[in-house]
Amino acid sequence: MRFVHDTLPQRVRFASGAATEELAAEVAELGARRVMVVAGGSGREIADRVTAGLPVVHRHTDVVMHVPVDVARRARDAATEWHADTLVCVGGGSATGLAKAVALTTGLPIVAVPTTYAGSEATAVWGLTEDARKTTGTDPRVLPRAIVYDATLTRSLPVGLSVASGLNALAHCVDSMWAPHSDPVDRALAAEGVRALSGGLPLVVKDPHALDGRERTLYGAYLAAVAFASAGSGLHHKVCHVLGGMFGLPHAQTHAVVLPHVLAFNAPYSPDAERLLASAFGAPTAGEGLARLRAALDAPRSLRSLGMPQEGVAAAAEAVVAAAPPGNPRPVTLASITELVQTAWEGNPPR
Amino acid sequence: MRFVHDTLPQRVRFASGAATEELAAEVAELGARRVMVVAGGSGREIADRVTAGLPVVHRHTDVVMHVPVDVARRARDAATEWHADTLVCVGGGSATGLAKAVALTTGLPIVAVPTTYAGSEATAVWGLTEDARKTTGTDPRVLPRAIVYDATLTRSLPVGLSVASGLNALAHCVDSMWAPHSDPVDRALAAEGVRALSGGLPLVVKDPHALDGRERTLYGAYLAAVAFASAGSGLHHKVCHVLGGMFGLPHAQTHAVVLPHVLAFNAPYSPDAERLLASAFGAPTAGEGLARLRAALDAPRSLRSLGMPQEGVAAAAEAVVAAAPPGNPRPVTLASITELVQTAWEGNPPR
Repeated sequence: MRFVHDTLPQRVRFASGAATEELAAEVAELGARRVMVVAGGSGREIADRVTAGLPVVHRHTDVVMHVPVDVARRARDAATEWHADTLVCVGGGSATGLAKAVALTTGLPIVAVPTTYAGSEATAVWGLTEDARKTTGTDPRVLPRAIVYDATLTRSLPVGLSVASGLNALAHCVDSMWAPHSDPVDRALAAEGVRALSGGLPLVVKDPHALDGRERTLYGAYLAAVAFASAGSGLHHKVCHVLGGMFGLPHAQTHAVVLPHVLAFNAPYSPDAERLLASAFGAPTAGEGLARLRAALDAPRSLRSLGMPQEGVAAAAEAVVAAAPPGNPRPVTLASITELVQTAWEGNPPR
Repeated sequence: MRFVHDTLPQRVRFASGAATEELAAEVAELGARRVMVVAGGSGREIADRVTAGLPVVHRHTDVVMHVPVDVARRARDAATEWHADTLVCVGGGSATGLAKAVALTTGLPIVAVPTTYAGSEATAVWGLTEDARKTTGTDPRVLPRAIVYDATLTRSLPVGLSVASGLNALAHCVDSMWAPHSDPVDRALAAEGVRALSGGLPLVVKDPHALDGRERTLYGAYLAAVAFASAGSGLHHKVCHVLGGMFGLPHAQTHAVVLPHVLAFNAPYSPDAERLLASAFGAPTAGEGLARLRAALDAPRSLRSLGMPQEGVAAAAEAVVAAAPPGNPRPVTLASITELVQTAWEGNPPR
């Protein structure tokens, strides 16, 4: 047992139906007098509601996916111009990402009110895009001081998107079991995340407005982000990154297809992960637990159905082998990864 | 699901046999140039060894249990006089507690190198004693910036003390399941703590020098402290506090005797705790898991054997009812608590 684990300072307020009050309490505790609200698209309506009683000096609605640098510059200029002393972001990863871009250069504290299961609010990772190139980094200044989780705000997230986003969070948990910086604390939090997500997601599918499923999924997404930010990218994320980059496959669906194959690949070589995941799924084996969950969620099964060409398998496998993270529990070979990608392409059960 | 969870910033370096190197790395990262080492009693020898290469300006050996105010004052004066910029404490709760007392007024950062399973290094709680009265409080300044856990340093801790200290940590985990501020994150960490302690302690008893048992126990003690500091004192700690105060019973042994009775009292009323604990113990029920562990450790069984008079049962029960924490899963009545204390006094299995 040898590890370094950095625990990051953050307050989580989990209170369904009480975002307005909890946000007001947190903003008051920070002594905020000039709040800049960051919320775009469908998040604006929720933002107007939950920030109505705050000392808002500016509502920034110019929010764009992947945080283009010019969008970040305009938001930073607005924060300076309006003499903002606190940022409140309401929405998904794009709103949180833009608030982080502002915090990175201004040092302003962020309070995040997430309305999706993206999880960015629980990490110190920032990202900026310029000329279609994404730069990412880690800085303690961009970690929101507090998160207000109100599961009622996620009720309007469509079921399909909820499942995709939830399975993405699940992939973060599973990959945290063997990622390069994985430690026992990460694995314990990731296992709790699997427990929450595998319990919550089927309830969301059954009744998207029932609070219990939404709460469990949101709580699981939080833990997934905390564990993944500490553990780093494991084999699963390398595979998905390669496939996404080479063939432009949809992010969340690719995760959903690939996850069982990476689990079957690694779990026999990591008894600790197998035990923790099986227990968290409440199933005899980790693989069976994931298969049951995927069946309940009607998750996509093949890379072929996502539009990947069969002749891409060989090149993808080569790129995965080149990018494989150090310390993966099972040695990564071209033969074994080719088989993995081929099986995922066909949509057959993992071997 | 409604909670507020504060995650406190701290780095944990867990590296058996490498305390010297890990401590040097951490001290360098803090930019420390004038280190004051706090270590008394048996911790001094270890301290001399692991701090040999550091820029030490003062070794403070005047360490006394429960941090008397005059001891704290002398340590604070020394820190000022020597222009210390960093505190390194090596030892158990007393050394950590004294370093915290200095940090409380000076704001100096602490790096802790624990040699016992006390857990104080993972909390922001400080304590000072004046005229036999203990004052405690919570302040972010006293939370060590980093902990260096080297399990080889706990090998010299006698088996009896290791078991007592480990069971105390286990009680922190169990009580975290239903304490006033208990939240799902606390419970997940506490369950992981139970897993580590119940796996590690029997190995320590079997072979006090084997590293595996020492590592698991130390890791479990860390988690116990993190969970307990967030969740607060539950019924178990109120019972032990009352018994300790009224009859001067030994701290750790009282915990060991009382724990199964409080578990049997509360678990049927907290299915979530019962499920988490049973799974963490790897036993059919939480109670059976704890009973097996206690048998393996030959833990003390009765309050009578610790010197508590039988006629004290009634007064103790009354005091426990008066001090019972809010939100205990099972309603606390004089009749039920009298039965609990009486059974623990007799040393019979919990009913």
